[in-house]
Amino acid sequence: MITKNRLDLGIDPKRVKEIISRLEPYLKNKLLPFWLKNSIDEKYGGFLSYFDKNGKATGKTDKTLICQLRMIFTMASAYRAGYGEDRCLKAAKQGLEFVIEYSRDREYGGWYWITDRQGKVLDDSKIMYGQSFGVYAMAEYGLASGEPAGREYAEKTFDIIQRNAADTSNGGYWEMFYRDWSLKQGGVYGGDRKTLDVHMHLMEAFTTLYEMTVQPIHKRKLQEIIRILTEKMLDPEFGTGMAQFDEHFQPLPAILFHDVWGCDRTANGEARPLNNTNYGHNIEMAWLIIHAFNLLNCDITLVKSLIKKIANHAYEFGVDWEHGGIFVEGPNHGPATQTLKEFWQQAEAMTGFIDMCLLFKEKKYWDAFENMFNFIWNKCINHEIGEWYALLERDGTVKWDYLGHEWKISYHTVRAVIQTLKRLRELLNIL
Amino acid sequence: MITKNRLDLGIDPKRVKEIISRLEPYLKNKLLPFWLKNSIDEKYGGFLSYFDKNGKATGKTDKTLICQLRMIFTMASAYRAGYGEDRCLKAAKQGLEFVIEYSRDREYGGWYWITDRQGKVLDDSKIMYGQSFGVYAMAEYGLASGEPAGREYAEKTFDIIQRNAADTSNGGYWEMFYRDWSLKQGGVYGGDRKTLDVHMHLMEAFTTLYEMTVQPIHKRKLQEIIRILTEKMLDPEFGTGMAQFDEHFQPLPAILFHDVWGCDRTANGEARPLNNTNYGHNIEMAWLIIHAFNLLNCDITLVKSLIKKIANHAYEFGVDWEHGGIFVEGPNHGPATQTLKEFWQQAEAMTGFIDMCLLFKEKKYWDAFENMFNFIWNKCINHEIGEWYALLERDGTVKWDYLGHEWKISYHTVRAVIQTLKRLRELLNIL
Repeated sequence: MITKNRLDLGIDPKRVKEIISRLEPYLKNKLLPFWLKNSIDEKYGGFLSYFDKNGKATGKTDKTLICQLRMIFTMASAYRAGYGEDRCLKAAKQGLEFVIEYSRDREYGGWYWITDRQGKVLDDSKIMYGQSFGVYAMAEYGLASGEPAGREYAEKTFDIIQRNAADTSNGGYWEMFYRDWSLKQGGVYGGDRKTLDVHMHLMEAFTTLYEMTVQPIHKRKLQEIIRILTEKMLDPEFGTGMAQFDEHFQPLPAILFHDVWGCDRTANGEARPLNNTNYGHNIEMAWLIIHAFNLLNCDITLVKSLIKKIANHAYEFGVDWEHGGIFVEGPNHGPATQTLKEFWQQAEAMTGFIDMCLLFKEKKYWDAFENMFNFIWNKCINHEIGEWYALLERDGTVKWDYLGHEWKISYHTVRAVIQTLKRLRELLNIL
Repeated sequence: MITKNRLDLGIDPKRVKEIISRLEPYLKNKLLPFWLKNSIDEKYGGFLSYFDKNGKATGKTDKTLICQLRMIFTMASAYRAGYGEDRCLKAAKQGLEFVIEYSRDREYGGWYWITDRQGKVLDDSKIMYGQSFGVYAMAEYGLASGEPAGREYAEKTFDIIQRNAADTSNGGYWEMFYRDWSLKQGGVYGGDRKTLDVHMHLMEAFTTLYEMTVQPIHKRKLQEIIRILTEKMLDPEFGTGMAQFDEHFQPLPAILFHDVWGCDRTANGEARPLNNTNYGHNIEMAWLIIHAFNLLNCDITLVKSLIKKIANHAYEFGVDWEHGGIFVEGPNHGPATQTLKEFWQQAEAMTGFIDMCLLFKEKKYWDAFENMFNFIWNKCINHEIGEWYALLERDGTVKWDYLGHEWKISYHTVRAVIQTLKRLRELLNIL
């Protein structure tokens, strides 16, 4: 008889089970079905992504690379995690066929930024935010399906990124390119900046690529990008992320770029202050680093103190202990300055805090997780329809009520629920 | 009638013509014929490279990647410059066929380091010193022949370098890899070092690649590597090259690597001092930078002061005004410590000083050029056979007398004569 080493963390296993018993049926019966029912474009293939508060198509039908690839990722990952049966894999497969047929640049390599519903290219830019999801989605599809196309296109996207986007003078990756991979201008066109966001998404993508291929080069590039993030893009004192940098990784006041949708909120055209960090992004990066370390079979103690800094900053200044949920952003050393609640930050903080609870075995992170779960369950989710509202006021009043648009799709919400369920079960095993 | 702007530099045009009248027949009737006659392996294809002082094959027949590719480059470049008629192009073509058949790694990409005479792989390492010549030789062949194979393999080699060798954390390129492109260990295996030598050869290769393709990505990578060289690998005060660096471009005392032939002279196993620079390498880099700027259509005034620093250091401390020729190496601030005369440094200094004379329009560089020419003509060249001796004492006495070995082949000598002739004619046009 095996005796398990159980820990008394002051967490009631019944509460853990209760949350599982809510999240899992919600995922199976509401969240995945919403996307499976509404998003698949039965007429032209690929996915539709613009939905109002009632889950009705808004009539906008352009197909952004981000949404196509995020749906492929989500559906493949749901299948790999054991949800949705063949419907999820089939959804992913038809999405894959659409992007391979219409979004893929056969001449210069990589993926176009926007097509119309039928697949006609509307914006042929090569933007790393999208290319990174090319690796991530194709690798997840390869892992989920075992079909060679997933591996083939994940590797091709990786190769084209290495060829065209790396800055071989200073390290890191450039982000904004024309179709032929020549760099865009600087300033609002972004051709002279490097961002935390894109490097984080490349790390996430290279992690899943390496999980699939176990190739030395994919391992090395993953290690290199982890080092860029941890050594060059975080505030050395607080561990918090800085948003934008020049070529030498000198932090710059963050501006909104012309060709991406970098911000949920209305932009007034001014740069953000330098001393400003995004809690949800930080906690997302923390759990993605832990995930990468696990797959690399690296000793997590090497980054534990850094991860703790990030988690504690989000815990102290990001969590809204009064109304629940996590704020948008604020300075390193004090309370939040932007107290709205974005859907994706709630999602990443839910995954992140349960991950911190597992890593550090401390109840405080469970408390933060439970806070996130409650706010999401009671305020973010449109339970009648299935998906989450885009943006809430601090108290949970819905501010922007749409459920899907040019980049808001199933990626953050479905991934958060799947990853949280996985971690809740791991937690139950040690309680 | 066109009136030319003629300059009075104190250089006698008759002397310029006289040097042309010696070098050109030597190139056509002695130097190229030596390699065309002796080096082509009529039995197995590719090139033989081991020759004693009489130009006789030594019996060693392994085929190093360096020598195969350098011969392809040299023969193609001679053809493009109008020498040797079809014989040079045919020689290059059969060499190309050999390496594509035997030296090319069909599975992992890139080129093997050493094969035997028949083409069986003896060392399957991927060493950037060799890979860089993959780009250089294939691009030159493409330019010379117009055949698509040259462009195809130059681009493939470029792509595999970008995928596998760039250090995307810190910039620059790693150099020592196993067959599957996993990095070799550090120390004498070199897996933790970056070198001036390899970065200079990559610049030279990317220059010719860009000359052929005019692709934006080849331009950008060329610009990036010029910046690595000029901003990170030169002594800021003297403009002189430092040999080896850690990943962050911190200079390291140079050691001899296990898998390359980094040194003509007997190595005693000790690292070189940090304050030590190689005159011939510096002047070679200077003219290669000028060449790259010209092809990039960049304003050469941006680097003129740097180029002048390099040239003047070699002029002041490298040139042996007593016995002629250029010394091997010495500290930044004082006279040479190694006063032997290596064949390849004489070759590069001949091209380099005539290039400096054209760029700066100063007679001092003509004097240095003439010094090099005289020493080469009177001491280095084995006129009976055609090729140059490997290493001379300071006074010109032959020390190492072989004419070819694992990396000494036609590359430095033929290129120097072709490039010098081209520049002498340009000089005549302005005198």
